[in-house]
Amino acid sequence: MADLILTTFDWVPELPRGYVRDMRVRWALEEAGLDYRVESVPFGDRGAEHFAHQPFGQVPWLTNGDRSIFESGAILLHLGERSDALMPADRSARTEVIEWLFAALNSVEAASLPWTIFKFSGDVTETPGRAHLDEFLKARLRHMETVLAGREWLTPTFSIADIMMADVLRLIDRFEGLLEYAACRDYVERATSRPAFQKAYADQMAHFAAAD
Amino acid sequence: MADLILTTFDWVPELPRGYVRDMRVRWALEEAGLDYRVESVPFGDRGAEHFAHQPFGQVPWLTNGDRSIFESGAILLHLGERSDALMPADRSARTEVIEWLFAALNSVEAASLPWTIFKFSGDVTETPGRAHLDEFLKARLRHMETVLAGREWLTPTFSIADIMMADVLRLIDRFEGLLEYAACRDYVERATSRPAFQKAYADQMAHFAAAD
Repeated sequence: MADLILTTFDWVPELPRGYVRDMRVRWALEEAGLDYRVESVPFGDRGAEHFAHQPFGQVPWLTNGDRSIFESGAILLHLGERSDALMPADRSARTEVIEWLFAALNSVEAASLPWTIFKFSGDVTETPGRAHLDEFLKARLRHMETVLAGREWLTPTFSIADIMMADVLRLIDRFEGLLEYAACRDYVERATSRPAFQKAYADQMAHFAAAD
Repeated sequence: MADLILTTFDWVPELPRGYVRDMRVRWALEEAGLDYRVESVPFGDRGAEHFAHQPFGQVPWLTNGDRSIFESGAILLHLGERSDALMPADRSARTEVIEWLFAALNSVEAASLPWTIFKFSGDVTETPGRAHLDEFLKARLRHMETVLAGREWLTPTFSIADIMMADVLRLIDRFEGLLEYAACRDYVERATSRPAFQKAYADQMAHFAAAD
């Protein structure tokens, strides 16, 4: 019986499949070789029990015995503390992983998320605010390009920071936002070629397909 | 001689003063009563040395001996591990603080940052993507209102999660985005009334004023 339970939606529309945030957690669990099972909550009708685990009505959350953890960043950090395959135990190396974990979320995804929302809504109206948002993302990607041109992974060994950063960048890539950033594209390719990613991706696709 | 050094810009324009992200770190350092000093890097000309500490050319970063840490989330977590006034040592309570630290950044600020960018640029054009962004923020604030209506702080004791969440919410409040969210406003008021916030705020304002 697995002590780790990952909860995600029972179903989502076609468009976000393969990109729902339980991917990050599945991927980490596969990298670490941890035993887990997946449970579902309704996508359509989110009840009090759902909000008790995830106060924004989102997914995923992870339960570990009687502890329930939400926020993909917090879950990855929790798993990183359980497995050397996800985060080195050495304190200085660990700090570096945590920096990049936050950077993936707060410096890169913070810039890519609004851009993605405009892409999803098919909105092409050019306004001053929109121009600021586009430049915000481009500036962040230019810096990531410099960082990734010189290294295989963000820190000396593959970690939860790479899971988070690659997951953020591959959604930008999906909407052709990485065309001018070859090192970022190569990094996404390198990360998503890993067997653990492939397994996690196939599992998420199968999970949602089973509900159709 | 302080072993903790917080680096921020030497100067910023009027508008962001009081809201530059070194606030989060100053506030945490004051809450913990840790000894630190503040150093500056040029706002105008950001060199290789700057990027070596902060790969996106932003501030703040914190040096602790020979360790240099960027990302306000990573810095707060690092300080939280040094002080019970910022994060309880108990593992379960600590997990809860970390969840909310990530939630402040990735569930609330991820929604408020693009909204703020539109506010800063004075852009009022209504487009489908913009409507999605506005609703994204409102949905997150409705959930935060429910959460905050029932508690003084996010976790049983004040922590780095509150520093982060209150800092994110007060910028929304500045642009009158909390008018319909009384519990969120009260929470911001409660948090920013703390002597440590007041000291940090006055120090940041004085720091930038000194450069004029």
